[in-house]
Amino acid sequence: MQAFLHVQALVFDVFGTVVDWRSGIAREAASFLARHAPAADPEVFADAWRQRYSPSMEEVRAGRRPFVRLDVLHRESLSAILPAFGVDPSSVPAPELDALNFAWHRLDPWPDCVPGLERLGRRFVIAPLSNGNIRLLLDMAKRAGLPWDAILGAEIAQAYKPTPEAYLRTAEALMLEPEQICLVAAHNGDLAAARRCGLRTAFISRPNEHGPGQTTDLTPEQSWDAVAANMQDLADQLGA
Amino acid sequence: MQAFLHVQALVFDVFGTVVDWRSGIAREAASFLARHAPAADPEVFADAWRQRYSPSMEEVRAGRRPFVRLDVLHRESLSAILPAFGVDPSSVPAPELDALNFAWHRLDPWPDCVPGLERLGRRFVIAPLSNGNIRLLLDMAKRAGLPWDAILGAEIAQAYKPTPEAYLRTAEALMLEPEQICLVAAHNGDLAAARRCGLRTAFISRPNEHGPGQTTDLTPEQSWDAVAANMQDLADQLGA
Repeated sequence: MQAFLHVQALVFDVFGTVVDWRSGIAREAASFLARHAPAADPEVFADAWRQRYSPSMEEVRAGRRPFVRLDVLHRESLSAILPAFGVDPSSVPAPELDALNFAWHRLDPWPDCVPGLERLGRRFVIAPLSNGNIRLLLDMAKRAGLPWDAILGAEIAQAYKPTPEAYLRTAEALMLEPEQICLVAAHNGDLAAARRCGLRTAFISRPNEHGPGQTTDLTPEQSWDAVAANMQDLADQLGA
Repeated sequence: MQAFLHVQALVFDVFGTVVDWRSGIAREAASFLARHAPAADPEVFADAWRQRYSPSMEEVRAGRRPFVRLDVLHRESLSAILPAFGVDPSSVPAPELDALNFAWHRLDPWPDCVPGLERLGRRFVIAPLSNGNIRLLLDMAKRAGLPWDAILGAEIAQAYKPTPEAYLRTAEALMLEPEQICLVAAHNGDLAAARRCGLRTAFISRPNEHGPGQTTDLTPEQSWDAVAANMQDLADQLGA
């Protein structure tokens, strides 16, 4: 495809695009909830935790707070949501909350990702461009066998998507022009921000990221450079 | 081994410890020299280029120059050494010098490294802690099949070894205490600096890094936590 003629690196959104955070968090939180909030639905809990994801970064994006890694924000969000499930966070030993917080390091990829990334990695440099921190992405990749060439993203850029610095500093670290990089993501907003920075864009459909009844990001909202059903389909389209 | 009881990550010096820079640079420079300096010995050229390595970082280490990636310093060093080989750098097209500069991205590992790192990676997080920049280390790993879990080092730390920040910020990125990390290196000075920061230390013998007649780093100069003949031997010793 013409748009990919000069593309040397594919960078990937991770939560939702590469890994199924909702099932993973629900699974990882189940035993904690059984102990502390037996009436809670683990998937509702996962949704509640994830719902604070974007707002939690807003202070950093707006420049009112120095950059802190996502693990710190996830931990704060965890304490913030527990009362709604009838749990007083100060009643739970901190190490137990810290351990639960690492659930985000143990998410499973969608089944197409490992084989798809292995194919894409033969033709392109592949790396996450996630708001997740280095250690989170490293633990996740090692556990799941994601064959990244490097761990890039917000912690290296010291900026959270969708601020332009997150994309542009990733290009700078790769010593590539923005148009030599393609962002692969299941979220139209992420792709729109990347396109404004000059990156190429590939939309992957993840209609069950938010479970059944998902209403957002079901279809591409702009003419992205590629639109694929999954990573294997993207590899097919890019001849990898 | 007792010293490794809490070690979760092994971080590696790269030039000399993992890759044979001298043969690689000589090989990569041969055709350039054949065109521009036919009397030059490629290995002497490699030694001359490498000789400027540590001095070139000194301005950054001393805080007199903002951090710049190693590719920039290698390029400056290349221009600086060419006159000694009878080549006026301004007479050579810049793209040709830039291409030669990327020779540092195309170095071969010592033969024990890929199998040894594959074994070590099953038990530990493994990553370079090199003064090389992200793209350099990424290109090298992809070409050679080095199975790093992440690309760490000077560019992420924004500090060159042996300044303490290079080691301590790498620990910070891994969210580990210094004593949970072991530096693997063929250079006593690098290990000494890492030990001063609290890291564990493993010496790998590379008696031919500087070719025949090498006089430095032939033996461990302190009681490092491990001393190994190569990466396979280190994997044996660490039960990996």
